Amino acid sequence: MQQGGVEIFLVGPTHIIEEELSKYNTAHLTIPCIEAKELIKEGEHPALALQRKPEASVAVAARLVKQGQADAMVTMGSTGAAMVSSLYTLGTFEGIERPVLAGPFLGFAPNTVVVDYGANVDCKPHHLVNFAVIGCVLAQKFLNIPHPTVALLSIGAEEGKGNNLVRESYPLFKNSGLNFIGNVEGNDIPLGKANVIVCDGFVGNILVKFCESLGGTIAAWLRESLQGQLPAGDINSLAEKLVSLTNPAEVYGGGPLLGVNGVVIVGHGRSRAPEVAKAIHQAKYAVEIGFVETLKSELSKAQAERVQAGVGAPGQARNQAGVRGSIPLS
Amino acid sequence: MQQGGVEIFLVGPTHIIEEELSKYNTAHLTIPCIEAKELIKEGEHPALALQRKPEASVAVAARLVKQGQADAMVTMGSTGAAMVSSLYTLGTFEGIERPVLAGPFLGFAPNTVVVDYGANVDCKPHHLVNFAVIGCVLAQKFLNIPHPTVALLSIGAEEGKGNNLVRESYPLFKNSGLNFIGNVEGNDIPLGKANVIVCDGFVGNILVKFCESLGGTIAAWLRESLQGQLPAGDINSLAEKLVSLTNPAEVYGGGPLLGVNGVVIVGHGRSRAPEVAKAIHQAKYAVEIGFVETLKSELSKAQAERVQAGVGAPGQARNQAGVRGSIPLS
Repeated sequence: MQQGGVEIFLVGPTHIIEEELSKYNTAHLTIPCIEAKELIKEGEHPALALQRKPEASVAVAARLVKQGQADAMVTMGSTGAAMVSSLYTLGTFEGIERPVLAGPFLGFAPNTVVVDYGANVDCKPHHLVNFAVIGCVLAQKFLNIPHPTVALLSIGAEEGKGNNLVRESYPLFKNSGLNFIGNVEGNDIPLGKANVIVCDGFVGNILVKFCESLGGTIAAWLRESLQGQLPAGDINSLAEKLVSLTNPAEVYGGGPLLGVNGVVIVGHGRSRAPEVAKAIHQAKYAVEIGFVETLKSELSKAQAERVQAGVGAPGQARNQAGVRGSIPLS
Repeated sequence: MQQGGVEIFLVGPTHIIEEELSKYNTAHLTIPCIEAKELIKEGEHPALALQRKPEASVAVAARLVKQGQADAMVTMGSTGAAMVSSLYTLGTFEGIERPVLAGPFLGFAPNTVVVDYGANVDCKPHHLVNFAVIGCVLAQKFLNIPHPTVALLSIGAEEGKGNNLVRESYPLFKNSGLNFIGNVEGNDIPLGKANVIVCDGFVGNILVKFCESLGGTIAAWLRESLQGQLPAGDINSLAEKLVSLTNPAEVYGGGPLLGVNGVVIVGHGRSRAPEVAKAIHQAKYAVEIGFVETLKSELSKAQAERVQAGVGAPGQARNQAGVRGSIPLS
C-alpha cells in the first residue's frame, strides 16, 4: 500500500482490522478504517445474508462507491455477496438484469472469456449480444486482445444448430459488427477456439462449477495415482497447479464485476498480499481507463447501431477522476 | 462370436467385411453378411449423410430391426448416424422427440447417469420427467441401482433456483413418485451427488463435450508436466486412464440409445474385439429383459399416475423373443 498512488479505505469491523494491522509496522501509512459492524462469510446465502446484515462490510463498501466516496470496491470475500450488494446498491446497466461474470475461467484457455456465468438466466437474444459486447471490452482492455473473436456456445457448429435462443441469436450476431465466427461446442472451450464465448448464464454457471469440481476431482485422483511414484512435494505442486488451472476464481483472479454502475473487483478468498495488491491495481486501471463508461457506451452503440431489438440506454456516466478504493472485509 | 448364444449378421459392403473376415479362421462359424453399399464415416453430418446414403450400413441395420429380422442393432460407428437412422427408421416413443442419450459419462462418478445429452433441446417440464424415468430405468437395469436418486441440474440447491424450465419442473418432480432429492449444481456432478441428474439436452451435450475435451487437455498437460519425471510408459498409462475416465463414450461404453422403438447399442469407434463383444452382450441383455418395453411402460406409468401434462402413450410392444443382432460397419 506504499506504492501505486491509490488511497485505501479498509472497510469492516474496526477491531478486526486494527488487530490485523497491529501485526505490521504501519506507522508511516495513513490507512483509514471505515467501520462496518458485520461480515458475510463464504457459504452464507448472499441475498438473505445482506437482508439480515445491512451493515456488512461488502454493503458499506458498495455504498461508499455509490456515494462517490470511493472510486472502486475491491473484495476477496463471497462473490455472491459482492454481486448482490453491487446489484442492490450500484444497480446494473439497462438491459442487464444481474451483474455479469465473465473471464478466462479455464487456465488452459487463457485467452478465452466465457460470458455469462453470473448467472443471468432465460436470456433473450439481445441479452446475448450484450454479453458479447461486454466480453469483447473485457478481452480488449484486460487481456489485450485487439479484435477478439466471438462465438455462440451451442451443440453444433452450423447455423441452425442449437436451442431456440442460439438459433434466434445467430442472425443478430452475424449483423452485430462483432468479429463473430459462428457457433462453438463444449469441446471447443478448452481449445480456446474463440476469445469470447457467449452463453446463457444457466449454462455458463453449470459449466464453470463443473469445471472447478472436475479439476479438484482429477487433482485428488492424481495425488492418489502418483503416490510413491514421485516426491510428495512434486505431487502436491502438480495437483495444486491443476486446481488453479481449473478454478475460475483463481484463473480469473481479481476481475471486474460487469454491467454494474461502478468498478467492483472480486478476487479469490485465498488471496494473499500479492493477489490483493494486483486486484487493487486492476481497480485503479479500471477507473483510469473509464472501464465502466466504455462498457456502457459500447453497449449503447450495440443497441443503436447493430441491434434492432430493444436494449437499454447508455444511462448516466459517473465522474471517475481520482482513484480511491475501498476494501470490505468479509 | 462363438459364445453367448447370439446370431450375428454383419451389415456393410460385403467386400470389406469379407476381406476383414479372411484374416481370421472363420471356417467353423456361420456369419451371414448383409450387403450395405455405403458407409457413414465419423465426422460426416449424420442427417445429410443418411439422406445421401440411404443404403448406408447403419440405415440397413436399423431396417433389419424395424422389420423384425434382427432384435437389436450394435454399432461402433458415428453416434449421430445411429441416432438419426434410429429416429427415422425405428421412431421414438411418444413424448420423446429425439433419441435420448444417457449414461455415467464421467468415470469419477460411475453411478451417476446424466440425461439427456442426446440432445433434445428446448424441453418442457414433462420431457424432463420423461428423462428422469428413462434415467432411472437405465440406472436400475444397467447399473443395478435399485432406488436411484434423482436430481435436477440447476444453478442453486434450493427450490426456486434455476431457469424457468427447472423452476417449472421442480413441482412435477416432487409429485412424480421418483426418488427426487432436489436440485444439484455443476460441481455436484463429479461428486456423484445423485444417481440420475436430469437436464435439457442443450446443457447435457455441452457438458459432456466439454468434459471429454477438458480430460484430453489435462491429459496432454500431464504428459508434458511429467516428462522426464516418470518412465514414459507410466506417463502414458496415466494420461490414457484420465482420457478414458473423462470420455463419455468410453465410460458409457456400449450403451443403449434410449426412447427409440428397438434395441440400439452404440459403442465407441475405438472399440476392439472385447468391447464389441461386451456391446453385443448388452444388446442381448436388453432384448432378454425387454428393456424397450420396460422403458415404454415406465414412461406410460409416469404419464398416467404422476404427470398431468400430456406425455406419450405406451405404444405397441414388439415381440422380443429370440436374440439376433446386426452390426453395421460404418
